Amino acid sequence: MAFLREFDLISRLCAKIPRGQRTILGPGDDCAIIARARGQQLLTIDSMVEGVHFKLDWTTPEALGARALTVNLSDIAAMGGVPTVCVINLAIRPQLPASFFDHLYAGLGKVAATAGVGVVGGNVTRAAQLAITIAIVGDAGTGVMRRDAARVGDSVYVTGTIGDAALGLAILEGRQDARGAARKFLLARFLAPTPRLAAGRRLAALKPVPAAIDISDGLWQDLGHIIERSRVGAEIDIDAIPLSPAYRTLLGDDPQLALSGGEDYELLFCTATAFSPATLSRKLGVPVSRIGRIVKGRSAKLLKSGRSLPDLTRRLAGWDQLRDAGA
Amino acid sequence: MAFLREFDLISRLCAKIPRGQRTILGPGDDCAIIARARGQQLLTIDSMVEGVHFKLDWTTPEALGARALTVNLSDIAAMGGVPTVCVINLAIRPQLPASFFDHLYAGLGKVAATAGVGVVGGNVTRAAQLAITIAIVGDAGTGVMRRDAARVGDSVYVTGTIGDAALGLAILEGRQDARGAARKFLLARFLAPTPRLAAGRRLAALKPVPAAIDISDGLWQDLGHIIERSRVGAEIDIDAIPLSPAYRTLLGDDPQLALSGGEDYELLFCTATAFSPATLSRKLGVPVSRIGRIVKGRSAKLLKSGRSLPDLTRRLAGWDQLRDAGA
Repeated sequence: MAFLREFDLISRLCAKIPRGQRTILGPGDDCAIIARARGQQLLTIDSMVEGVHFKLDWTTPEALGARALTVNLSDIAAMGGVPTVCVINLAIRPQLPASFFDHLYAGLGKVAATAGVGVVGGNVTRAAQLAITIAIVGDAGTGVMRRDAARVGDSVYVTGTIGDAALGLAILEGRQDARGAARKFLLARFLAPTPRLAAGRRLAALKPVPAAIDISDGLWQDLGHIIERSRVGAEIDIDAIPLSPAYRTLLGDDPQLALSGGEDYELLFCTATAFSPATLSRKLGVPVSRIGRIVKGRSAKLLKSGRSLPDLTRRLAGWDQLRDAGA
Repeated sequence: MAFLREFDLISRLCAKIPRGQRTILGPGDDCAIIARARGQQLLTIDSMVEGVHFKLDWTTPEALGARALTVNLSDIAAMGGVPTVCVINLAIRPQLPASFFDHLYAGLGKVAATAGVGVVGGNVTRAAQLAITIAIVGDAGTGVMRRDAARVGDSVYVTGTIGDAALGLAILEGRQDARGAARKFLLARFLAPTPRLAAGRRLAALKPVPAAIDISDGLWQDLGHIIERSRVGAEIDIDAIPLSPAYRTLLGDDPQLALSGGEDYELLFCTATAFSPATLSRKLGVPVSRIGRIVKGRSAKLLKSGRSLPDLTRRLAGWDQLRDAGA
């Protein structure tokens, strides 16, 4: 059975947030109606579940709504697309007041307005856990950055700094102490990530089109998706992984959490471009670091000063399996 | 955090089911890539949650998967569209074996193949309750059937028979006894509804384009959505509501459950066409009944032999509020 005040709730929640320039009919009918797309389109779905991906005492409902949409926008960014419209499924538990959802949608609406994406419909259902599931449609540019496009000889780059979000999560979960500006920075990196939409669009305009992925599962695991789909290997220079001053304040130059932790929503990309990292940073409008190269083979290796680190490489593979076992 | 074997699970589940003719890149990347659409597009999202919308001992995983997609396809049918691609979010609880999801996707894949819709991606997350959330994209035809298009003087029609699914649910929940063929028919009407896609497409080709909605919340409530959005009133002839022989075997000619019960996934539509119900049935390929008319005003009234039934009308309005209170 459809949830009972669905019609009212969705219409009310959507009333103040953008519907998008391409929207002919927004919330309130069986489907939204969207104007003809210019070319190829992107489509993705993602979900945030209370107790699994977030706790309500970590953040405000505004920030939660903003983050739910950002995480989806990041998948559009990773393909180099322009987000156009989205639909939202809310699984709600009865204890939450209506004002909670007003705030959730206010935060979501701000991100939607900044990204130019229309919220064109939704559905509400009851559940034991609050969950926000968003499906988003985007326009593909002339180039689309796929995971299977990495080629031997490409350099491997990342945007921004890596590991901050995992450290922010560790602080929220009480596994890591932090104070002052470092704490504030790291929490914000987890709770309020930035979708790299402009950087993604500019990257996708390069020829040949880079391979790319957003770092959601963690640098090491997401690199694994690239090399698996592209049927190549990779070497990563451990000292080249960009760590923020806040990360270094807490963990020194140990990159393990940067390799294994997820949720940074930075872009990892592979390209044979002759541009330097400095030029790429200028072009993309975000810091870019070269962290390694694509090689023959099927596996990823860690190097320090050109020498392989088999123990840490094994530990990372083991970490991956441990996460699986605990899932 | 993304769920951990997400990549493997989604790719494995999607391997055997259709990706659709318009799909350039299916599951396994950040987004699916879809070819340029022919014109306007439809977009909708819906969710089925264990313990809220279904119980696992009611049905097989195949039937559950089939129903999850059917319910979404019904929203495309209600606009007169052609479904093209969908993405699926699975919220899974650890107790369920992998084979459960193979069967779920097998059922879903059969419906997808019949409807010509591609399953182009997905996401998996842990949760306390199993939930299947599907976002579906469709092509709008030259006419799109909206809820706000009913006009004074239109006749109100429904496809098929009404109330069977609610009666099937009552049997499953032990609120209603039934045996033999009637039981089997009514359970199937709830557990394995038919998306009225072909009928929807043919309806949307009529000029002027009818107003339409699919009956998911219940005939009375869904009629309410039409008259609210169209700013009109309606009169429904209580004896004209099409009841199946199985429904009549159990409830005689009492149409209350047919008015209030949901989940039939038949189409309710309003049109000034000169076609008779018999001609409409032939054109749409599904039985069509004329159950009333659109009038001035803002409310719906029930009539029996041309005389108004204010008590039952009030009771239906009250039933609506009771459902709300219990939600």
